[in-house]
Amino acid sequence: MTTQNSAEAEDTFAKYESQVRSYCRNWPAMFDTAKGSWITDVDGNRYLDFFAGAGALNYGHNNPKFKEALIDYISRDGITHGLDMNTVAKSEFLEAFATKILAPRDLDYVVQFPGPTGTNAVESALKLARKVTGREAIVNFTNAFHGMTLGSLSVTGNAMKRAGAGIPLVHSTPMPFDNYMGGAHEDFSWFERVLNDEGSGLNHPAAVIVETVQGEGGVNVARAEWLQGLAELCKRQDMLLIVDDVQMGCGRTGDFFSFEESGITPDIVTLSKSIGGYGLPMALTLFRRELDVWEPGEHNGTFRGNNPSFVTAKAAIDNYWSDGSFAEETKRKGQRIADRFEELCQRNEGIKRRGRGMIQGLAFDDPEKAGKACAKAFDNGMLAETSGPSDEVIKLLPPLTLSDDELDQGMDILTASVEEVLR
Amino acid sequence: MTTQNSAEAEDTFAKYESQVRSYCRNWPAMFDTAKGSWITDVDGNRYLDFFAGAGALNYGHNNPKFKEALIDYISRDGITHGLDMNTVAKSEFLEAFATKILAPRDLDYVVQFPGPTGTNAVESALKLARKVTGREAIVNFTNAFHGMTLGSLSVTGNAMKRAGAGIPLVHSTPMPFDNYMGGAHEDFSWFERVLNDEGSGLNHPAAVIVETVQGEGGVNVARAEWLQGLAELCKRQDMLLIVDDVQMGCGRTGDFFSFEESGITPDIVTLSKSIGGYGLPMALTLFRRELDVWEPGEHNGTFRGNNPSFVTAKAAIDNYWSDGSFAEETKRKGQRIADRFEELCQRNEGIKRRGRGMIQGLAFDDPEKAGKACAKAFDNGMLAETSGPSDEVIKLLPPLTLSDDELDQGMDILTASVEEVLR
Amino acid sequence: MTTQNSAEAEDTFAKYESQVRSYCRNWPAMFDTAKGSWITDVDGNRYLDFFAGAGALNYGHNNPKFKEALIDYISRDGITHGLDMNTVAKSEFLEAFATKILAPRDLDYVVQFPGPTGTNAVESALKLARKVTGREAIVNFTNAFHGMTLGSLSVTGNAMKRAGAGIPLVHSTPMPFDNYMGGAHEDFSWFERVLNDEGSGLNHPAAVIVETVQGEGGVNVARAEWLQGLAELCKRQDMLLIVDDVQMGCGRTGDFFSFEESGITPDIVTLSKSIGGYGLPMALTLFRRELDVWEPGEHNGTFRGNNPSFVTAKAAIDNYWSDGSFAEETKRKGQRIADRFEELCQRNEGIKRRGRGMIQGLAFDDPEKAGKACAKAFDNGMLAETSGPSDEVIKLLPPLTLSDDELDQGMDILTASVEEVLR
Amino acid sequence: MTTQNSAEAEDTFAKYESQVRSYCRNWPAMFDTAKGSWITDVDGNRYLDFFAGAGALNYGHNNPKFKEALIDYISRDGITHGLDMNTVAKSEFLEAFATKILAPRDLDYVVQFPGPTGTNAVESALKLARKVTGREAIVNFTNAFHGMTLGSLSVTGNAMKRAGAGIPLVHSTPMPFDNYMGGAHEDFSWFERVLNDEGSGLNHPAAVIVETVQGEGGVNVARAEWLQGLAELCKRQDMLLIVDDVQMGCGRTGDFFSFEESGITPDIVTLSKSIGGYGLPMALTLFRRELDVWEPGEHNGTFRGNNPSFVTAKAAIDNYWSDGSFAEETKRKGQRIADRFEELCQRNEGIKRRGRGMIQGLAFDDPEKAGKACAKAFDNGMLAETSGPSDEVIKLLPPLTLSDDELDQGMDILTASVEEVLR
Repeated sequence: MTTQNSAEAEDTFAKYESQVRSYCRNWPAMFDTAKGSWITDVDGNRYLDFFAGAGALNYGHNNPKFKEALIDYISRDGITHGLDMNTVAKSEFLEAFATKILAPRDLDYVVQFPGPTGTNAVESALKLARKVTGREAIVNFTNAFHGMTLGSLSVTGNAMKRAGAGIPLVHSTPMPFDNYMGGAHEDFSWFERVLNDEGSGLNHPAAVIVETVQGEGGVNVARAEWLQGLAELCKRQDMLLIVDDVQMGCGRTGDFFSFEESGITPDIVTLSKSIGGYGLPMALTLFRRELDVWEPGEHNGTFRGNNPSFVTAKAAIDNYWSDGSFAEETKRKGQRIADRFEELCQRNEGIKRRGRGMIQGLAFDDPEKAGKACAKAFDNGMLAETSGPSDEVIKLLPPLTLSDDELDQGMDILTASVEEVLR
Repeated sequence: MTTQNSAEAEDTFAKYESQVRSYCRNWPAMFDTAKGSWITDVDGNRYLDFFAGAGALNYGHNNPKFKEALIDYISRDGITHGLDMNTVAKSEFLEAFATKILAPRDLDYVVQFPGPTGTNAVESALKLARKVTGREAIVNFTNAFHGMTLGSLSVTGNAMKRAGAGIPLVHSTPMPFDNYMGGAHEDFSWFERVLNDEGSGLNHPAAVIVETVQGEGGVNVARAEWLQGLAELCKRQDMLLIVDDVQMGCGRTGDFFSFEESGITPDIVTLSKSIGGYGLPMALTLFRRELDVWEPGEHNGTFRGNNPSFVTAKAAIDNYWSDGSFAEETKRKGQRIADRFEELCQRNEGIKRRGRGMIQGLAFDDPEKAGKACAKAFDNGMLAETSGPSDEVIKLLPPLTLSDDELDQGMDILTASVEEVLR
Repeated sequence: MTTQNSAEAEDTFAKYESQVRSYCRNWPAMFDTAKGSWITDVDGNRYLDFFAGAGALNYGHNNPKFKEALIDYISRDGITHGLDMNTVAKSEFLEAFATKILAPRDLDYVVQFPGPTGTNAVESALKLARKVTGREAIVNFTNAFHGMTLGSLSVTGNAMKRAGAGIPLVHSTPMPFDNYMGGAHEDFSWFERVLNDEGSGLNHPAAVIVETVQGEGGVNVARAEWLQGLAELCKRQDMLLIVDDVQMGCGRTGDFFSFEESGITPDIVTLSKSIGGYGLPMALTLFRRELDVWEPGEHNGTFRGNNPSFVTAKAAIDNYWSDGSFAEETKRKGQRIADRFEELCQRNEGIKRRGRGMIQGLAFDDPEKAGKACAKAFDNGMLAETSGPSDEVIKLLPPLTLSDDELDQGMDILTASVEEVLR
Repeated sequence: MTTQNSAEAEDTFAKYESQVRSYCRNWPAMFDTAKGSWITDVDGNRYLDFFAGAGALNYGHNNPKFKEALIDYISRDGITHGLDMNTVAKSEFLEAFATKILAPRDLDYVVQFPGPTGTNAVESALKLARKVTGREAIVNFTNAFHGMTLGSLSVTGNAMKRAGAGIPLVHSTPMPFDNYMGGAHEDFSWFERVLNDEGSGLNHPAAVIVETVQGEGGVNVARAEWLQGLAELCKRQDMLLIVDDVQMGCGRTGDFFSFEESGITPDIVTLSKSIGGYGLPMALTLFRRELDVWEPGEHNGTFRGNNPSFVTAKAAIDNYWSDGSFAEETKRKGQRIADRFEELCQRNEGIKRRGRGMIQGLAFDDPEKAGKACAKAFDNGMLAETSGPSDEVIKLLPPLTLSDDELDQGMDILTASVEEVLR
């Protein structure tokens, strides 16, 4: 292994890596190993990880339940790279996904492997929606985050990231996310008004793309009734409904899909991050069978067949989604975090809780304090990041698999850090 | 393992997977394991792989030299998913890449991890070029292939794939690739004429994006002098030169970078496919240090830190790029394939050889015959695919590590298949 | 003269003219001469014109006060076509406009002659706003109408007209016009919210373009306080404010500029339609002196110097705008029409009045009845058209110069027609 | 009249008018009256006009043959402003145009009145071509000029004018105009190659827009065989052919339409500038009857019915196009100018003649000298302008009606000015 300590490591990266790097600036350590809810640096420091790969590690780091399957697969020379050839690993994943995830939820979706990242899934979803409808316009929501390639970026809200495109981002129009106007407007009053008005100037959308909980946008939770209203609006107005479940899917909010609670059935769903189980790149685009108008090869990509991911993805399904207990546990733990946050809010001014399941946020009236609290938490051995348009929200995405002890330990560190900052 | 045979497998995929799948249609087998130049299906059939993950498997399937490092890393719970945090695996990869690849070639590039696929690298390259220059337009070349997300797709030539965008693809103008007009035009005569003419109507480009050999476009090889002319043109006309080395880099043409032979130094280089060594998703965007104008986090993505890839990527550099012998061997073997193709062309009408190093193509006057020959080769235990606007070229991308025996065996199968078809 | 009667004329046009023609379909007569408020067909029928060239004939048809000046100018061979050369007619117009219109209103605008139609003026306004700010996005309002060339069309609301573009119309985002939500939202609550939110996804606009009264949009009147709020919002948010006064300027609402009443000073103003006085093509783009960043010739056009228009435009200023009496009279007559409409509304259900000054509308709950009433009015010797997204509003634009008798006569015809339809 | 002299006039304009004004900078006089080939300033200076409203005054200034008709029409209160209502003036124009222009040339076009300027006509042509084909892309030619509104500007070549758009101009791709590569390439070799190649990356065009002689582009003349080749290419490749005859139509090259000589029949033709006869704003879009897919009102505009123009337009047809003599005379005089230019070129180095009919250009190796020669000509009582991407071409557009004496007098002034500059 390397002989560099964390301080020396920073020099290495400063020398060779682009200025675009960011997380490493907040957490100036040289990380080496990780297991479950913990990550360890070269200096031997251990950190409790309430960030979990921004939602890519719902089952914790290097989950021992999948690790053996992964090592076995590699050891026996299972195909690593398979493009979209038929492989055993892919077939087994598909079977598990179809029978244990889709069928019990009565979802008649076909599965596309669009490339192994969330933005690949979003791009394919937008392309498909446009191809199906023959329209170009997409409606997205305020504070949405969908990815960094041009199609996804055009439906993403963040102004700094949009500016990175270097071309005007068009074909998208933002509409207010749930509660964006603080209850001052009736849901969809503006959106439906312009859709119904032949003179509004809104290009009729091919699709609406929405996150049920906006993680990057600041842990903004859409209510079930708002999502139901949106689904009905889409049906009435002949627009496809795309749920981007890249961050909130795979059990983050409790159920496998974050939209289950609301009872809606999106036309298209994107999954990535934790779908691979072990933190390996993988993504899926799901859509109603009648929307499958793709030509063979019309959307492709080299790493669509990252077979080791299929192995751990199947293991994740088998281990965690054969019954409803995992979802129950997630909801219970989410509530436990929420309760801790609520207590904290009652004791202190200037903060507010947001969240659903194991995505929980603490919004600060003073944005700077959110960052300071996270920095303090890091000093005390914990990873947590901020989000929101002004980075004003501490966003917790702990592994769904963390123990109650770990949960309490993390919340102790964090609440102490917050109170120190607020004092 | 599964009990499905290849025929049953097809049913599974037909039932659950989108119509967009394509390779599996040409090679109707259920693949399971792979090693070196060989891939094996569940029925026990072995196939000699002259396709090699479309260039993602330059070091062969599951290269035993990296396999142990990978298993060790996983076994010791090395961090799997690290976003852009500083990790030991990343640091070691960067050191190896900087000292063994960049420094000896006198390339003062900084490294961006743009997300783990080629199209992520291309999107980031285009964004950076636009940000640096403040211009929007990009010049691409006829028959270019750069990826399927909107930014990359807009500089890709294939009409069917472009139509998949569902919106008009703009901001790009195609220029003739080397020899596109069959020698009827002087190189760059049209391109430079419109650049010099204030009245031409061409939006002055931020950048030119080029492949040194167009793989998907039909194994079109740009001559060194053409690339030199292009580099000089870019300098004269204040345009950034982006070499997309996703498929042709990592030694495919012999040298690590495909542009080395021509002596040019691109402003921006994209790498993916074989950079990870083992077929795991990974990509890099390299650019001159002065172009590093990114804001922290201005381009991001969940799977930028696929650390197992960094381990095998480093192993690949250590094992194959510590001296020049691997490049020499690749050139030698490439010549051996070329010689076999030239003999074949002399014996038969209606075919022509194209290629450089270990990317070799056989162009058919009658496009249908190319596909038929590949189908026959598959029946005889060999994977090879077609490319080109009408799928008229058999494109060989064998592992660079294949043995001379394997090479001869593959060429025997292929030439027999071709001659059977041409007869 | 022709020997065709109105019926024969229709055949001529059906034979030679494109299907795109429209007004002639509602008013199937062959018109020949016109004077003041009256227009006469070849069959000798006279029609009271409450349409007045869609606002291009504020001073009536062939106003005798300008007619002599026009004939004199033509007779003495004054330059007809002058591009943007300095001419006596242009100089005299400019002096009159600067001293009698701009100076008394304390407007330090420079004058651009952008081509002789409203859409030319709008296109130049949008180009200038983008050039000044370096931004591309424009905010327009629901039910806006700004013209049929691509730039203007992209900020126009009507879906049928937008579809005519044949390309996706982008770079514009509609915001709610005054009272669009029926008072349910606070003014600008949504607009300012997304401007203030770095994560909203709205591209920060170069400019906002607005009509003070939307004529084509259905006679939607913006309140003075709404316009003031908009002007302040533009200042706070660093957006240029463009008032498109093509239809509502030149005294239509009373004052010369329709925005005078609200006390705001737009950054850019467009004028056309009645600016030429006699119904001859002419248009102006006015803007604050500091915004004059045009290069010489950067926007041009063949008919910018339609000198006969300058002669009648000057005559109009001299005759009608040397003091405030014309504005007073317009307001008085506007009120007289409004009163008649209010009485009508009190007597009947299903209609509502809208309007300001001499732009007055009658909105029908049942859109079909608006068209039927206009058809009846035509049968009874009167021209009036409908507007609004569903053509549900009778829009009156009588000449500002009509007499009280003509006014009453017109209102008698119209109210009878309306009541007949409503019965 | 004014008491200003030309010098004082400049102050007036500097004070009130935008910097965008341009012609007045080259010709610093205050013009007042004009007749035939002559224009007179307030100081009594007379100038021989070889510019003729940039082609809007083919019949000379204030042609006495139309003047009376115009004054009569105004005097008898003929309708001035008629939108697209049926009027006697319009009907008579249509009859004359259909029977004397279209029918004898066997052109089964319908007529659209798209608004009174060239750019209105071009915008409507592009919209129609896109609507008919369902495609967005347009091919234009190097050094094209089609107008300043966004649609027309996107197919215009000049970089300075394009920059004025303030948004990236897209959906258009320039192809080489006739002789653009100096004979080095075969006609259409590049254009047809990319059309035939499914991998070229060119979006298949809805239409090709072309000028038969590029006036603003530097008097570039397309040969008849090139135009024929283009027409055939359009047919083969299912693209509509739009001839923009705004500047070269109405007899400028001899025949009424500039494309008659080549024998092609465009799908769509635009006319403006001289179509009104007297220099009054007017424009037409002509297209094959089967392309008339417009909805009523889908493209509209306030000044489509500028009836005084219809009166003089009809008079122009009656007076000049009842037989072929006017075309003959134009060709003869054009040849006379060409001969004078050829002599001049033989006597001097550094200049070359270009042109067809009464559009004749003199291209200078040293662009500055072209402007200097025009300035000298102005000092000697003559108006002539430069064109071309570097303003390197003196472009002569004399009235077609000028006498041989005037022609000789003008050529004497000009050749002397040129020789003085070249000396």
